[in-house]
Amino acid sequence: LDEESARYTSDARAVPRAELPQHAPELVIVLGGDGTLLSVGRIFASVGTPLLSVNLGTLGFLTEVRLSELYETLEGWCHDCHLIEKRAMLRAELWRNGQKHSEYDALNDIVVTKGEIARMGDFAVELDGNTVAQFRADGVIVSTPTGSTAYNLAANGPILTPNVDAMVATPICPHLLTLRPIVVRGDALLTVRAEGIPNLALLTVDGQRAVELCVGDDIRCHKSPYTVNLVRLKEGGFFEALRTKLSWGER
Amino acid sequence: LDEESARYTSDARAVPRAELPQHAPELVIVLGGDGTLLSVGRIFASVGTPLLSVNLGTLGFLTEVRLSELYETLEGWCHDCHLIEKRAMLRAELWRNGQKHSEYDALNDIVVTKGEIARMGDFAVELDGNTVAQFRADGVIVSTPTGSTAYNLAANGPILTPNVDAMVATPICPHLLTLRPIVVRGDALLTVRAEGIPNLALLTVDGQRAVELCVGDDIRCHKSPYTVNLVRLKEGGFFEALRTKLSWGER
Amino acid sequence: LDEESARYTSDARAVPRAELPQHAPELVIVLGGDGTLLSVGRIFASVGTPLLSVNLGTLGFLTEVRLSELYETLEGWCHDCHLIEKRAMLRAELWRNGQKHSEYDALNDIVVTKGEIARMGDFAVELDGNTVAQFRADGVIVSTPTGSTAYNLAANGPILTPNVDAMVATPICPHLLTLRPIVVRGDALLTVRAEGIPNLALLTVDGQRAVELCVGDDIRCHKSPYTVNLVRLKEGGFFEALRTKLSWGER
Amino acid sequence: LDEESARYTSDARAVPRAELPQHAPELVIVLGGDGTLLSVGRIFASVGTPLLSVNLGTLGFLTEVRLSELYETLEGWCHDCHLIEKRAMLRAELWRNGQKHSEYDALNDIVVTKGEIARMGDFAVELDGNTVAQFRADGVIVSTPTGSTAYNLAANGPILTPNVDAMVATPICPHLLTLRPIVVRGDALLTVRAEGIPNLALLTVDGQRAVELCVGDDIRCHKSPYTVNLVRLKEGGFFEALRTKLSWGER
Repeated sequence: LDEESARYTSDARAVPRAELPQHAPELVIVLGGDGTLLSVGRIFASVGTPLLSVNLGTLGFLTEVRLSELYETLEGWCHDCHLIEKRAMLRAELWRNGQKHSEYDALNDIVVTKGEIARMGDFAVELDGNTVAQFRADGVIVSTPTGSTAYNLAANGPILTPNVDAMVATPICPHLLTLRPIVVRGDALLTVRAEGIPNLALLTVDGQRAVELCVGDDIRCHKSPYTVNLVRLKEGGFFEALRTKLSWGER
Repeated sequence: LDEESARYTSDARAVPRAELPQHAPELVIVLGGDGTLLSVGRIFASVGTPLLSVNLGTLGFLTEVRLSELYETLEGWCHDCHLIEKRAMLRAELWRNGQKHSEYDALNDIVVTKGEIARMGDFAVELDGNTVAQFRADGVIVSTPTGSTAYNLAANGPILTPNVDAMVATPICPHLLTLRPIVVRGDALLTVRAEGIPNLALLTVDGQRAVELCVGDDIRCHKSPYTVNLVRLKEGGFFEALRTKLSWGER
Repeated sequence: LDEESARYTSDARAVPRAELPQHAPELVIVLGGDGTLLSVGRIFASVGTPLLSVNLGTLGFLTEVRLSELYETLEGWCHDCHLIEKRAMLRAELWRNGQKHSEYDALNDIVVTKGEIARMGDFAVELDGNTVAQFRADGVIVSTPTGSTAYNLAANGPILTPNVDAMVATPICPHLLTLRPIVVRGDALLTVRAEGIPNLALLTVDGQRAVELCVGDDIRCHKSPYTVNLVRLKEGGFFEALRTKLSWGER
Repeated sequence: LDEESARYTSDARAVPRAELPQHAPELVIVLGGDGTLLSVGRIFASVGTPLLSVNLGTLGFLTEVRLSELYETLEGWCHDCHLIEKRAMLRAELWRNGQKHSEYDALNDIVVTKGEIARMGDFAVELDGNTVAQFRADGVIVSTPTGSTAYNLAANGPILTPNVDAMVATPICPHLLTLRPIVVRGDALLTVRAEGIPNLALLTVDGQRAVELCVGDDIRCHKSPYTVNLVRLKEGGFFEALRTKLSWGER
């Protein structure tokens, strides 16, 4: 149990959330929505612990198990009749003045955006060192297949099934008619450069952590060595989640 | 001459920009880009002075006259062989707790957006009192036809020729598949309501002035009584500007 | 009663559908879906007879009255507590070799498309005599506000509320990144020219009548002098129809 | 030399184009545009002969070598300082009444469309046996990464770099707000079913061959065992071709 959850029990064995991986649990049960899973997923990614995510609210893209199915899924886990769905993560390295400044792993997306009141920023995207495009926009999203149904979808990006070995780069509100979302290989290096920032620009990881950027910063995105491992009883819940969450395919 | 321009001359008759309308000039010559014209346009809107906007840089949507065409256009003005193109403006009233808090005139657009790090906001749009849609998004743009080639275009909105009697409401990155930009009558009342704001939301006028919003604020958008009056030698520069600025129609 | 309907009754006063307007009925009750209303609408447009359209199946964009509301609406009609919603029509003139070849009135749209196996066609669009764009595509839609929820929507066009005084020109699958739907004044002249047709191109009116085109044909679209007059009990059913038919605004 | 080209020479060793693969050439030089390469590519796919495609007209997506660069590229070929770019192909199996009726290999795309005058068709898409969506539309495109810049782009699909191991399914003008292009694994099975065809529906392969479909026909699309092998002097011409052909990234 992490410390926050421990407040609700009398159980003394609470540990801070960030230290949980050191205890090497066999399985982590995540109660909550997609946001909770995103942060827990990043914590356990380096040790690869399987996550059984149970949705307390509405069905999520990541949290396909409902509370009523918890015990059935747990039994599946105990009797080894379950699947582990490995979700690829993205690693973003922030390079400043020719040096790696910091790095982040994301299950959904790495987003570079202009600050609130600022005018649009000038961004450049490179693929394996070749220029893809330079443009003025609100920002750029680099998304995993898992994240393609998150912010990427809002920015008019395509949907990738979770198992495609690819990343997608989608401009946010580009002031340009001549751009489209670009789907590249999973092992590619996608670089987003903040070429001009009138005021403020931010790097956001999974919509949850933000770092302020400087002009000339490079954000180099490639596949993370880690994956988030989700426990499933069966395959094929992806389009069902799309239907439930987004009225997918409905008239 | 306004004060800022006066610095470059020895002419003593400089007045603050905001007081210029009181001097009731017959014609205002605006040297600059679209941004300059937007702010000058709003200043002179209430008195209706014709503006002759000369582009010092690249061709603009509003500033169709190049520096080399200035004297030709001025002669056209003097000999009365010119057109006045009236561009409709939008008035946004900010209503808070049942009271009108403030109001703004825009030549391009009224934009309501979430703050930078914030999650998406919950917005509602009403047309003449009837619900159009409620949705989670980065924001909403209410644009004049003039503004349809500005932020509205970046948010995937349609292009309206400047003389259409209409407004367009375009969601910014809605997390929803079931929305499209909506074109409504020029005399309609479009209300944008900030229903849920995780952190910060802003009202921006022509990309230049920003006001912080509170949850429950209504932004009521309707046609302004004012217009911006542009001096032109000839009609039909709209698609030419589109071609120059946005590679419109090019392969 | 038209002849087709008359088959289901013993009533002898059946007349061919096309002759119905000569009998100058005070009100026409249309039982069916949007397709039925489209064809009946065009027949009665020239005489302006009000249409009370009752939906036998699912709610339509044009047929907002359900069968269960028929009598209530009829009573509203008799007691003069109803509205007449005038829907603008589009007139398309087909010009061939400098001569008017034929003309058509449409309530929804005028569509020019390539034939089935053909490669894309080359089309040009002009607005009031000025070039808007030339492009290779599957076709072009010129739509009334009423038709904006029909084929225009499928081709990614914006939604116009029925009362906007405008038309929208939307390319169908253009092989070009630099085009967007264009909304123009209701009193404009939009010309679509079939510049290159590898094989076959067709002009379709409201999705129901088709004419084969020749290279160089001009289709000149402008407002029809006629309107379709719909009997309504109340306003504001437009977004409700959108919600019912297209899951509008739903997640 | 194929028979058609032989007409222009006095060389007697002309053979029909379809028999060329039997002569097992070491290299095939294709003079022409993308269309020529598409048909030659399908002919040589089964034997894997490298193709050196030289563009006689404007730069193509597949034909990156200009006539002026022919000898330089040939020398590169002779001295083994060249690359072979393998482009994945798609195999479409047409299943009728439970039996395989025919099969086709495509370098660009497999397109299922309604006939010309017909109303929209009803299509269903399945991924590995699970329903993706059922919808009314003009058709469906299943595209390789190579084909993503062809018809898929016109239908608003995303761009995939040629080396991504994926396919993309894009609806053509769906009368539905709730669909997006879907990118799936390269080794997936995508089935398009013609559920309802008012009149006529066609299966088209690389825009060049067409087969008439019956209601209930299944088109099963998966990776072809063949590839088209393009001779290149250097990598990275993809975005350059995009810029030349589609004004990619230009304002």
